[in-house]
Amino acid sequence: MSTFRAINPATGAALEPAYHATTRAELDQAAARARAAFPVFSRTSGQERGAFLRAIAVQLEARASELIARAGQETALPPARLQGETARTCSQLRLFAELIEEGSWVEARLDRARERENAPRKPDLRSMLRPIGPVAVFGASNFPLAFSVAGGDTASALAAGNPVIVKAHPAHPGTSALAGEAIAAAVRESKLPEGVFSLVFDAGIEIGAALVEHPAIRAVGFTGSQAAGRHLMDLAAKRPEPIPVFAEMGSTNPVFILPRALATRGPEIARGLHGSVTLGAGQFCTKPGLVMFAPEQAAPFVEELQRLMSQPAPFTLLTPAIAQSYRAGAGKRSAHPAVEVLTPPPGDATAALLLRTDAATLLQHPSLGEELFGPATLLVRHAGKDELLRLAASLHGHLTATVHAAEDDLREYAELIPLLATKVGRVLVNGFPTGVEVTHAMVHSGPYPAASFNETSVGTRAILRFARPVCFQDVPELALPPELHAANPLKIWRQLEGKLTQDPLT
Amino acid sequence: MSTFRAINPATGAALEPAYHATTRAELDQAAARARAAFPVFSRTSGQERGAFLRAIAVQLEARASELIARAGQETALPPARLQGETARTCSQLRLFAELIEEGSWVEARLDRARERENAPRKPDLRSMLRPIGPVAVFGASNFPLAFSVAGGDTASALAAGNPVIVKAHPAHPGTSALAGEAIAAAVRESKLPEGVFSLVFDAGIEIGAALVEHPAIRAVGFTGSQAAGRHLMDLAAKRPEPIPVFAEMGSTNPVFILPRALATRGPEIARGLHGSVTLGAGQFCTKPGLVMFAPEQAAPFVEELQRLMSQPAPFTLLTPAIAQSYRAGAGKRSAHPAVEVLTPPPGDATAALLLRTDAATLLQHPSLGEELFGPATLLVRHAGKDELLRLAASLHGHLTATVHAAEDDLREYAELIPLLATKVGRVLVNGFPTGVEVTHAMVHSGPYPAASFNETSVGTRAILRFARPVCFQDVPELALPPELHAANPLKIWRQLEGKLTQDPLT
Repeated sequence: MSTFRAINPATGAALEPAYHATTRAELDQAAARARAAFPVFSRTSGQERGAFLRAIAVQLEARASELIARAGQETALPPARLQGETARTCSQLRLFAELIEEGSWVEARLDRARERENAPRKPDLRSMLRPIGPVAVFGASNFPLAFSVAGGDTASALAAGNPVIVKAHPAHPGTSALAGEAIAAAVRESKLPEGVFSLVFDAGIEIGAALVEHPAIRAVGFTGSQAAGRHLMDLAAKRPEPIPVFAEMGSTNPVFILPRALATRGPEIARGLHGSVTLGAGQFCTKPGLVMFAPEQAAPFVEELQRLMSQPAPFTLLTPAIAQSYRAGAGKRSAHPAVEVLTPPPGDATAALLLRTDAATLLQHPSLGEELFGPATLLVRHAGKDELLRLAASLHGHLTATVHAAEDDLREYAELIPLLATKVGRVLVNGFPTGVEVTHAMVHSGPYPAASFNETSVGTRAILRFARPVCFQDVPELALPPELHAANPLKIWRQLEGKLTQDPLT
Repeated sequence: MSTFRAINPATGAALEPAYHATTRAELDQAAARARAAFPVFSRTSGQERGAFLRAIAVQLEARASELIARAGQETALPPARLQGETARTCSQLRLFAELIEEGSWVEARLDRARERENAPRKPDLRSMLRPIGPVAVFGASNFPLAFSVAGGDTASALAAGNPVIVKAHPAHPGTSALAGEAIAAAVRESKLPEGVFSLVFDAGIEIGAALVEHPAIRAVGFTGSQAAGRHLMDLAAKRPEPIPVFAEMGSTNPVFILPRALATRGPEIARGLHGSVTLGAGQFCTKPGLVMFAPEQAAPFVEELQRLMSQPAPFTLLTPAIAQSYRAGAGKRSAHPAVEVLTPPPGDATAALLLRTDAATLLQHPSLGEELFGPATLLVRHAGKDELLRLAASLHGHLTATVHAAEDDLREYAELIPLLATKVGRVLVNGFPTGVEVTHAMVHSGPYPAASFNETSVGTRAILRFARPVCFQDVPELALPPELHAANPLKIWRQLEGKLTQDPLT
């Protein structure tokens, strides 16, 4: 039997207890239980699943101090951040509960039957979104709660009516086990089949790969690196029955500072940017890692950012592997002949890194613009509007793009925001991209390689990833879900002949 | 320069003129034009694109007699069917025009900014669906109009604001060229960039593969065989930047006849089934190819179906390759030791085929239940409810499933419809699955291998395949699309803080 322990990244010490790596046979059992739970769970009402999600939140809150203490040991994230993340995780569950209790998310559509001349009768057609089957979720290293066992992927997949099997991130097995216990307790309390939720562990990649390849699994949710995300995508695409992988793989989150904003708010932008680059030790997938501006009147901005980024403030990264990868990437980029280093040499500690280059160098060496996970960012000077638009046009997919601009800048650079909107999931003006609100309008996603899918993984739209439309033709109401009954007993919003209404079908 | 000609399937003769196979260089030009057209086309209003789709319909109607005559030569489909298909193609374009002129399809969501205690200000977030970029569409052999050059994939991709490159089906290049001319004329008339639409030809698979692999292409729409669809899926998954392939790959469309319906309506069901199996010579992806029932009181049904399927009525299939494949498949299944042939030997002509086996044989040899494109269907006797549910549970993904049932049957077999709803895109009661209405509630899709995606390729939802949500955070209105302006100038339905309304944001 194989076991593994978490490492405290602040001390390098192994943490007790040891966790048992799930075997193939145990994985098969979890998958069989998930498959068996699907018919029951998929037919629960929105009210029932809403109560279940709320029960998970209550169970998490009952374990909050334990969760925060253990997550602190396993990730070196500070208590205030973990407290905030616990609150976010619970409010996320309650937001999905509200969504499914209200019920209109199923996008019910009803088209009436009608006799036609010179053609067969038009049938009665009624469709709605239905769950897809067991979903595999991979916990993320950098959000031990909100993007892990009880995080957004799990919450949205369960909300839609799908059983979930979570692969715990090996860096925080103790946090994962605690969150898993909270969900299992809520499953029991809600009298749902045990297979609605399972948690599997592995120090390596074997069980995760077997999970993605398992015939019982119908979709995958993942938040992590491009390499790992692409690996799972490739496994899923090669299955006898390919399944979608909803992989959010991070990005560099370009920032464009336009001339008037740079001239009037340089130091203020520098302070916000410093906060955003170093928040959570730069380990957010929305960290701004690429900052583009023309050199005119840039000195106050650059000087303030250089001063802040040079402050002695050693960072503890999430895992030894992330720390090693950050140092290696930082070293490699600092050594690039066309890159200036604006921060002091880091010595032994993990330090913030501010680099500077010019647009021509970045266009010639696009790998300088790849994500470097950790508290680093790259300033890129360009020669003005034409070169800025060339830089923007050269971008691949990112989660976010930010523009700092006065109104007259937006008028002068009117092409910029529509262009960026084709490259990212979220465009910000005069803000900072870290901080992803869990709301109805949020989009956390973006063209490849930021993500593998044209939907969001944060906010209420995230549920749409784990559902598919099913149409019922001339099916009597005794065999129809209540969402599709003519009388609209659930009072949800539906499209009748394409028109949105809460009225019954008459 | 490579050229090819269509074959008249009724005579085997090559049809003039020869069509030029698109070269790689020409494909690159078409892709470059599509890429260049995207920024312009994606920012047109719903009104502008609606007028463009209506102009395509008018241009098709102006060429209707030519189109129908040429399609008749290239496919052997009868004029009435092709006339109906032309009407369907045009009304489909006008339905998408209505959808985008009305405008609510973009699912706009607006969440207000708000100050918060002990947390940063909540930003103003506004999101909507935006087009994704150039789309490749593959014409289908069996719908030379409605699923080909100006068919549903093209209509929905253009409706969303994406340039389209169609790969013409090599069996009907002349029909494709005429439809392509209609679209090109509408592009000119609407003063849109030429790259909004291109048509490429190839007798083989090289140009189609190059199209799917082309970096300018952001998604693929396909209707055809499982082998071809999976090949395109695999190519798309291996790209440096994988893209979605929306492949509709056909299915066997199981039919379940429950006891009371069989006892009371056997001959009537047989007549409807015969019409559905032989419609279009059985070359619909929704043809019912698998019919399950218990033997009690089945004789009137079986005898009537046998009589109808045995009528001498030779069929001309769409292409020599399809005819060959049908005869080979029919021969192989007829030779199976556990399969009875209920129709007379076909001789030289392509004839309808009625086969019969039992549930145990089908469960043991599931390949007997695979799609056989052409006028054939397989009757499967089962021993009653338990075996029927085992058969239903053993199904892989199909486009449709049909249940013939009296109300008491539906009560007695209450598990059947919810189970079938997990296996297909559309469940029918007391109908026949051929005939796919183009409406708001239609779902033409299903779990793999029926389709590769959790969305529909027919009906207004089909537009959702070719769009993705983009969020704008604190973006001033001067840089926002009108759909997201607070005043709601387009009067569309939007979610304000999660609530559907046509009201302005105040």
